[in-house]
Amino acid sequence: MKAPGPTLNSGPIGIIAGSGSLPGLVAQAAVSSGRGAFVVALEGFAEKGLSTFPHIWARYSEASRVLRHLRAADVSDLVLVGGLQRPLGLGYLKDFGPQVIWWALRNLDLFRSGDSAMLQKIVTAFEREGFTILGAHEVAPELVLPPIDLGAVSPDANTEPDIDRGFEAAIGLGTLDIGQGVIVARGRVLAAEAAEGTDAMLERVAEMRAQVANAGRKLKPLGVLVKAPQPIQDLRVDMPAIGPKTIQGIVDAGLVGVAIAAHRVLVLDPEEVRRLADEAGVFVTARKLSGSAMSQAR
Amino acid sequence: MKAPGPTLNSGPIGIIAGSGSLPGLVAQAAVSSGRGAFVVALEGFAEKGLSTFPHIWARYSEASRVLRHLRAADVSDLVLVGGLQRPLGLGYLKDFGPQVIWWALRNLDLFRSGDSAMLQKIVTAFEREGFTILGAHEVAPELVLPPIDLGAVSPDANTEPDIDRGFEAAIGLGTLDIGQGVIVARGRVLAAEAAEGTDAMLERVAEMRAQVANAGRKLKPLGVLVKAPQPIQDLRVDMPAIGPKTIQGIVDAGLVGVAIAAHRVLVLDPEEVRRLADEAGVFVTARKLSGSAMSQAR
Repeated sequence: MKAPGPTLNSGPIGIIAGSGSLPGLVAQAAVSSGRGAFVVALEGFAEKGLSTFPHIWARYSEASRVLRHLRAADVSDLVLVGGLQRPLGLGYLKDFGPQVIWWALRNLDLFRSGDSAMLQKIVTAFEREGFTILGAHEVAPELVLPPIDLGAVSPDANTEPDIDRGFEAAIGLGTLDIGQGVIVARGRVLAAEAAEGTDAMLERVAEMRAQVANAGRKLKPLGVLVKAPQPIQDLRVDMPAIGPKTIQGIVDAGLVGVAIAAHRVLVLDPEEVRRLADEAGVFVTARKLSGSAMSQAR
Repeated sequence: MKAPGPTLNSGPIGIIAGSGSLPGLVAQAAVSSGRGAFVVALEGFAEKGLSTFPHIWARYSEASRVLRHLRAADVSDLVLVGGLQRPLGLGYLKDFGPQVIWWALRNLDLFRSGDSAMLQKIVTAFEREGFTILGAHEVAPELVLPPIDLGAVSPDANTEPDIDRGFEAAIGLGTLDIGQGVIVARGRVLAAEAAEGTDAMLERVAEMRAQVANAGRKLKPLGVLVKAPQPIQDLRVDMPAIGPKTIQGIVDAGLVGVAIAAHRVLVLDPEEVRRLADEAGVFVTARKLSGSAMSQAR
């Protein structure tokens, strides 16, 4: 872990903002830190509320205008954050000029759980323009957890092997550059996350359980969602995340909780996550992954 | 590969039959080979048509009756084949007596793409009762493919890297005991199969593409389904399979074809698979996986 908060550069934190609440949380943290924020709100993705910060709205095709505004605002540190959509079926472009950076940004969503090499090229392209890329957690360290149980509920002894199996499987998936999340019940991986994302994976397990329930079986909550970053992942731009919606998904899927890597998975709105988890009686546990656990992953 | 056809024992091939067409295909092959078949048709799973072979209908709870009938029919070689359903939420039982064998048989479906250790225990339990377990492909060698393109269509040069990536990812998933199939497009793993099975994975990708198409994009077919057995998998009882339904799923998901491991993936009704693939203009290619490809899998 780096020390929380950027320290090398001055000037406001530039935030390239996709969809969701995370860009606003990071911008608020940048303001609270005294650095301030300058938001590049991506049209069609970013939330309107970002207009309360110094900002411009931009399309992915306006790369040079955006770079000009970032420099005029004295931005040297950049955070790339929020959801973006990559249409299926588009091929990879061969060059990585500014246009392509924006194409790639627009299309980040399906990279979220994979394609670290592509993301690394985007980072390199921004760095070549003179910017330092920071992770959301470096600007807003309150968005990651130390090794704790967040709420009132802790995993029971029967669930611990599923958590271990889940980290093993999630890190293995990550090493294969497939994804960063799995759902495990009684030692069995029920679902592995690739391009569809965590929410869709949780819905899938909810449907599987509904089918069994329709067959007349009453099912106790069972199984755990486990998320860990890919060992090859650049945490600055491609960090796994959970949030209030994840807790609802866990409950709908009939799971008993979620386990994440401490310091390495973003928790959007941790207070609300804790409240929802306690209300539903599910756990949110953050575990320290040893370096060897990461490198032994197959 | 063993030589096709069982040779050590005599007497009819015993077939513990779950759902689908495969038990009938294996029984027919056993008859054609001159050995003959004795089918244990599992109630609620096996197809009615199996009654044309010497058979009994049995429930999973009737283990001793079944063993008695198998012995009376002079069966020494057994094939365990067909689909069975394992309800989510049932725990693993601790002992593996005859009752549990049948419980496990009933519940094989969710083991299909995982839990090789459990299957191995089932095999061991049958072997302890004096039976030899054969793979469906040993009785019906026409159900696996040598390294060929089955139909008129072959993968183009753009698709070859996706096939390579797919085998790498599928074998990696298998090594993690997660599953045996992936869908890859332009180097990206769109979907990884765990407990939901191949058909459900294909439906998921079909939905993902439909969402993009609804957003106004016209999508060319792109991406490939890749299936390979888990390196730790006992091919006698847990072999991956494709069939006519898979081809329909591939077409619905907008993929260009399917790649399977030569000799190691069952093809149900290869003639019909070939016909449907040619009609749809998709490929079915079987590739020889080197031993090192299997052992290098991570």
